[in-house]
Amino acid sequence: MRIAIDVMGGDQAPQAILAGAIDGLSLLDPGDDLILVGNEQIIRQTLGDELAKHSNVRIEHASQVITMNDSPVEAVRGKRDSSIVKMVKLAREEGADAIISAGNTGALVASGVLMLKSLAGVERPGIAVLLPAMGGKAVMMCDAGANVQSKASHLHQYAVMCSLYMKALRGVDNARVGILNVGTEKEKGTPLVKEARELIKADASLNFVGYVEGRDIHKGVCDVLVTDGFTGNVTLKVIEGWSEGLFGNLKAEIKAESPEMIEKLRPVMARVMKLYDHEEYGGAMLLGVAGIFFKVHGSAGARAIKNVIGAAKAAGRLDINRQIEARLGGG
Amino acid sequence: MRIAIDVMGGDQAPQAILAGAIDGLSLLDPGDDLILVGNEQIIRQTLGDELAKHSNVRIEHASQVITMNDSPVEAVRGKRDSSIVKMVKLAREEGADAIISAGNTGALVASGVLMLKSLAGVERPGIAVLLPAMGGKAVMMCDAGANVQSKASHLHQYAVMCSLYMKALRGVDNARVGILNVGTEKEKGTPLVKEARELIKADASLNFVGYVEGRDIHKGVCDVLVTDGFTGNVTLKVIEGWSEGLFGNLKAEIKAESPEMIEKLRPVMARVMKLYDHEEYGGAMLLGVAGIFFKVHGSAGARAIKNVIGAAKAAGRLDINRQIEARLGGG
Repeated sequence: MRIAIDVMGGDQAPQAILAGAIDGLSLLDPGDDLILVGNEQIIRQTLGDELAKHSNVRIEHASQVITMNDSPVEAVRGKRDSSIVKMVKLAREEGADAIISAGNTGALVASGVLMLKSLAGVERPGIAVLLPAMGGKAVMMCDAGANVQSKASHLHQYAVMCSLYMKALRGVDNARVGILNVGTEKEKGTPLVKEARELIKADASLNFVGYVEGRDIHKGVCDVLVTDGFTGNVTLKVIEGWSEGLFGNLKAEIKAESPEMIEKLRPVMARVMKLYDHEEYGGAMLLGVAGIFFKVHGSAGARAIKNVIGAAKAAGRLDINRQIEARLGGG
Repeated sequence: MRIAIDVMGGDQAPQAILAGAIDGLSLLDPGDDLILVGNEQIIRQTLGDELAKHSNVRIEHASQVITMNDSPVEAVRGKRDSSIVKMVKLAREEGADAIISAGNTGALVASGVLMLKSLAGVERPGIAVLLPAMGGKAVMMCDAGANVQSKASHLHQYAVMCSLYMKALRGVDNARVGILNVGTEKEKGTPLVKEARELIKADASLNFVGYVEGRDIHKGVCDVLVTDGFTGNVTLKVIEGWSEGLFGNLKAEIKAESPEMIEKLRPVMARVMKLYDHEEYGGAMLLGVAGIFFKVHGSAGARAIKNVIGAAKAAGRLDINRQIEARLGGG
């Protein structure tokens, strides 16, 4: 398995990304390769003698960096020698099986959608995100915004792909699949969700549990939640904004009541807030493209990078993309 | 002005509802009437001598009650002598200007949509809810689920109606109108939001501020947020579920850390949680029907009922529905 990592993306790049990449080598199997994509001089300076110790690590030089402030599509088109574009090219042209970046999310998705082929049988790639649910559970929601208008057949395909990924990432057998809707009764909803319901229900390989309302996502009533990219994107951003605002308000109120108390609570609040940062929690994946495609949080440190190398290995071991093609492409 | 109150709906009915209704009499103008809708015997027993003191209060007897467990549409069709149905009939047949209930939300919306006429020029009634934003601000979001498929012209009409209501309820002049979307750039979004943008931008009576992303709702970047009823309903329920789940997780973590601390924090947490309960905060309104239609929280006590009588009076004084018809019906 060949795993390419963009070492220039993220707040702690390149040091922490490189440190995590080297730590992650312990998770690789014999024959696996790691490709570090970024400025060669900086990588060599940062790693020093460490680099020579690992024959399964190589550098792919990239002279440019797409920053968080770059406009995604323009950056992908304009910065052809950026670490993101070169990383995606490794997946497209040189058979890298998995790509990982903590860089500009929009640019990553744009590069994946614009530059990578879809897997055989996949109509539209979708963005999957892991949302935290009660009791340490997680819900994989797709599409979180790759397409603003989805068809019922896309939702069905997201259900198939996410079920396979939940097995790889979280060990979930027979993932419970829900469709996001305004009510749980079968007569509720738009023609899109009703049609998607028929397709998903009719697929015996899926464990369909019905419609899921917004208020129940957090309860973990399903493992996989499919929706159109417009609703999914709004949902994801509402969750982000609401969590942030609610924590902010609560902290201000507690501080006003008792400044000592807020000091005592700082560690526990930081722990809970981290749970609610979806990128911290699970990152985002672009499903349905040729390659295992992970976006990790911009603030990702060495440990997060090592973890996602482990996740990429798990997806590779289970050969998720081949399984997707077998199911959807008849291959 | 004639205001009808369902005194049988809500957790604290009928005592607290009746107490709030009597308190609310102080907000009425000479010539205004209050109609108490519910079981006459219970109302007379509860109010006792108080009733005879107010010549502007009368009782409309209703022998049935729609409970929180009743299925909305079936209840409205089946319980024709319920306090909700009779209250809505007062608006339809006897010229009640405003109706107020703390009862079953679904049944209230169903009764309004099924039984009331739309205002002249209004294509579809919409459900408006007030969401809390930072700094004590509020955002009125519409449609929160009256229709699962909206047209651009509906979104434009919601912008007009909500702008007028924000003036009446919160004294907001020239309300800033946003459209919920997946990005703020004008090329983002579905054909629906793009078309709505053109209609709203072209209406010189509206203060359009552009597209608004889910993560910015809480920042109070707009006073009015329009969206289709599917996205609006999902958004509202995600907010409800997320607030509840996040508070639950935080309480559990703090308790595990220090049982005394959770005791100390109880009042401040209760205060912040209340801020995030949308029904507590502002209730829901059915806009575009003939009548000023308020749904208050199921747990509403006397003070909440008095407040909403004040809000109904404000809407009446500004003659919001006539203003809506003047704008949308050319009347």
